Amino acid sequence: MIVQELQYPIVQAPMAGGPSTPELAAAVSEAGGLGFVAAGYRKADDLRAEIAAVRQATSRPFGVNLFVPSDDTIDEEVVRGYVERLGPLAGRPRWDDDDWQAKLALLREEPVPIVSFTFGCPPHDLVHELRGAGSEVWVTVSSAAEAHEAGHAGAQALIVQGVEAGGHQGTWQDGDDVERLGLLALLRLVAAVTDLPLIAAGGIADGAAVGAVLVAGAAAAQIGTALMLAHEAGTHPAHRAALAGDGATALTRAFTGRTARGIVNRFMVEHRDAPPGYPHVHYATAPMRAEARQRDDPDGFNLWAGQAHKLAQEGPAAEIVRRLAEDARAAVRKAAERLGDHNVPEQPL
Amino acid sequence: MIVQELQYPIVQAPMAGGPSTPELAAAVSEAGGLGFVAAGYRKADDLRAEIAAVRQATSRPFGVNLFVPSDDTIDEEVVRGYVERLGPLAGRPRWDDDDWQAKLALLREEPVPIVSFTFGCPPHDLVHELRGAGSEVWVTVSSAAEAHEAGHAGAQALIVQGVEAGGHQGTWQDGDDVERLGLLALLRLVAAVTDLPLIAAGGIADGAAVGAVLVAGAAAAQIGTALMLAHEAGTHPAHRAALAGDGATALTRAFTGRTARGIVNRFMVEHRDAPPGYPHVHYATAPMRAEARQRDDPDGFNLWAGQAHKLAQEGPAAEIVRRLAEDARAAVRKAAERLGDHNVPEQPL
Repeated sequence: MIVQELQYPIVQAPMAGGPSTPELAAAVSEAGGLGFVAAGYRKADDLRAEIAAVRQATSRPFGVNLFVPSDDTIDEEVVRGYVERLGPLAGRPRWDDDDWQAKLALLREEPVPIVSFTFGCPPHDLVHELRGAGSEVWVTVSSAAEAHEAGHAGAQALIVQGVEAGGHQGTWQDGDDVERLGLLALLRLVAAVTDLPLIAAGGIADGAAVGAVLVAGAAAAQIGTALMLAHEAGTHPAHRAALAGDGATALTRAFTGRTARGIVNRFMVEHRDAPPGYPHVHYATAPMRAEARQRDDPDGFNLWAGQAHKLAQEGPAAEIVRRLAEDARAAVRKAAERLGDHNVPEQPL
Repeated sequence: MIVQELQYPIVQAPMAGGPSTPELAAAVSEAGGLGFVAAGYRKADDLRAEIAAVRQATSRPFGVNLFVPSDDTIDEEVVRGYVERLGPLAGRPRWDDDDWQAKLALLREEPVPIVSFTFGCPPHDLVHELRGAGSEVWVTVSSAAEAHEAGHAGAQALIVQGVEAGGHQGTWQDGDDVERLGLLALLRLVAAVTDLPLIAAGGIADGAAVGAVLVAGAAAAQIGTALMLAHEAGTHPAHRAALAGDGATALTRAFTGRTARGIVNRFMVEHRDAPPGYPHVHYATAPMRAEARQRDDPDGFNLWAGQAHKLAQEGPAAEIVRRLAEDARAAVRKAAERLGDHNVPEQPL
């Protein structure tokens, strides 16, 4: 398994909608971590070009993350009411499958080292088709029950995402009654039901947190927000400025109709009543968000951020990856000493 | 500081309302951890007796935890409406200070090794009075801002409580807009603003999680739910049975008017609309909860539980404490190896 053989146990989170770039993915893989291409919101042809760009820049393994199309039942009247309240700049709400079949065809034809899935579990046959084509298949889970089911579907590793995570929550269902688990509790509950390698995600923004999730049973830490200030990231300048501040984050459906975590801004506060309705609401708000980005208005678009965003640091991605790994090692050594292991040697990584 | 000199970095969480007993506190301290007396909901005379019982059973250090009286503004009409909906078994809603002054007088007169505070920050003068009397003073925090303020008030250590925690959330304010942070992100955010020793709390139910919070910068882990099945705990049998199951937990104000985490049951589902109003609502539901306990009805009283409750194990408290510490050490060693530290020796704790 690739994740167990990485020089540094650091996986870049796929961050659809801007921050993820081929340069970022390649830089993380080249540095000894694992880069990811965010296929969400992309057409298959764009994905093909992005994969080619990563391959151009690195010969090391990388992953591609797909959104599993939603089959949630949407209350279309409620969604229509919300879109009307958004005003005249709103786009037309609609469902689509995010070019699902075309992207899968591409990945069957030109397999990548790892394919991961978010928002649900791909069917058993698809998982085995991709595995047969030479990819490792990872599935994002947020509960022990989802972990169990993903294992049955043939997943070879699990991205275990806690409630601290920025951007969309990966829960397969998005109801108000879903128990949203803190990462540490979630990791231990999942580790109790599966032997698959776990990739911990959610609010991990420094090396001590990376070390902590390894101790809690993860094979690697997946880092999103803490790479959003990387030079290679495509993060909008107004978003970068917000990440460096200490604004509170909250969960919201205002931007996409699916629960996601962002830094609280005016759009979120004014649209607390946003109903479930993904991807319909995503398409309705897309032109409004594009326009706000154009105006550099951080109150008008989604400032996705994990709960520890204030700890994110600027720099080249390779430097961030190495620092996280080195700080993780130092933190683990210190804890070993506290627990009576006084002879952990100082070795170069 | 006591917390840094414990044989095992394991602190028992004070669990007011039943689970905490002098036997449990003494057993944890005797085992090499740190036991706690839960002074909440107790009269000063009962607290005096409980402290005496712990001192009878152990000469090792222990702590006493106090609820800081609420000065929240309560909408009394809204609370009255809620209590009416509770029906004829409800008690009279009222405010009190939980015998605050009498308990403080007791602790000044007969100092204990550690006094901790929940639900707010005691004033600077009080902190220094208790310190002058020979106690170490700890304050529970749930954000970097609270940590900063507690440090200014003279706290010598901080209990850092994540959203995963069972029972009452220790946040100083209980509004719907409070950002509730996952433990790992919270620990790192707090560690960035203070050098005080941190005691990590919230959803820590096994040794790997204990190891993880030490790596994340904690001096010790505070364990609540994972001690609720201990032989010495006063946990109700119906509550014990629920803890061993895999019922989801949720945050609720239904039982006390203050946000707390419990295993979802009928009372919680039927009273999603419970308003803020602590301790008024606590007094209103108290007779109803007592009656449900009497009938062994787990749907009628508060099944406080952290998010990882399914991992709690039965046994003598001393055995639980030792297992947590040993498993923590093994988990830290494994992570050190993954990070390239291959020479962590196998030493007895």
